[in-house]
Amino acid sequence: MELLEKRILQDGTVKEGNILKVDSFLNHQLDVELLNEIGKEFKRLFADKKITKILTIEASGIAIASVAAQYFGVPVLFAKKSKSQNLDGELYTSVVHSYTYGKDYTITVAKKFLSPREHILIIDDFLAVGKALNGLLDIAAQAGATVEGIGIVVEKGFQEGGKNLRRQGYNLHSLAIVDSMENGKLVFRKQ
Amino acid sequence: MELLEKRILQDGTVKEGNILKVDSFLNHQLDVELLNEIGKEFKRLFADKKITKILTIEASGIAIASVAAQYFGVPVLFAKKSKSQNLDGELYTSVVHSYTYGKDYTITVAKKFLSPREHILIIDDFLAVGKALNGLLDIAAQAGATVEGIGIVVEKGFQEGGKNLRRQGYNLHSLAIVDSMENGKLVFRKQ
Repeated sequence: MELLEKRILQDGTVKEGNILKVDSFLNHQLDVELLNEIGKEFKRLFADKKITKILTIEASGIAIASVAAQYFGVPVLFAKKSKSQNLDGELYTSVVHSYTYGKDYTITVAKKFLSPREHILIIDDFLAVGKALNGLLDIAAQAGATVEGIGIVVEKGFQEGGKNLRRQGYNLHSLAIVDSMENGKLVFRKQ
Repeated sequence: MELLEKRILQDGTVKEGNILKVDSFLNHQLDVELLNEIGKEFKRLFADKKITKILTIEASGIAIASVAAQYFGVPVLFAKKSKSQNLDGELYTSVVHSYTYGKDYTITVAKKFLSPREHILIIDDFLAVGKALNGLLDIAAQAGATVEGIGIVVEKGFQEGGKNLRRQGYNLHSLAIVDSMENGKLVFRKQ
């Protein structure tokens, strides 16, 4: 997605440890116009799929999924990262390791919102090793829901998450794939 | 907001301890059509204000703020609840007590995204005692930003948060105010 790649080149910054910061428009401050273009692009890429619900994970995924959901006309369901006292009832849970925060956490989804009848599109902002995504896929599998696709805004193509998911046969689309960021220079994969 | 009150009566549930669960449409599963109507209503209520940015807090506030931001044509900035290794640079921080999770946590906003030039609208899903909101107001004050208004989806009118904020002179609009939920019966304040 050219608009997105341009924006990453313009406003993204590369930090030590292969960290790509896009916090001025994607995951702290949010450019909602850009999110709309991202939502339209996801709709174009998954137009032939029968999607009944979009599944994402707090926090950054929520904005992207909510704006995109307008183009699909379906509800969003977001996995929570800590168990609220308000989230009673039966829960699907999965343990995820976060490299960003340096610890394990449990993600939860209320069982009543995810059934074998659902055809879901999973949306998230980043895909690197794929830990959060595997947690969402685990929860979808526990629910017996059909995963129609996975939509990612930025994939780190030099890490194994995307490769593994494609090898497993998932219908994965990443709007920008960074194949290298050595010496602070971003190289995008041609798509 | 009649549509919202009807939806709360239809799909909300009252739990012990004055907990109002709206997780089927507002803060776990998200009805994005309803969020759009909420966004339009916030725009109507704050139409005369010069808003340059919407400030909210993860996680539930993000969806509401992002959809609403489309009607204001401004970016969203969300306060984070845990310090990511990716959120470097100087941060505004404030300590908030959560009754939902039963603990204190620190919220953070990168200084570069909130300046004295900003005129902000604060948006959140719930207002009860007002702890999270006071954290956001504290951060806005540290930044020297002007708070043009506060938009809340559901206020618990029998708790002191809303009363205190109105007494302090904030331009607070809550789309639904629950004045009582005794014996599971919801009573909304006439607005």
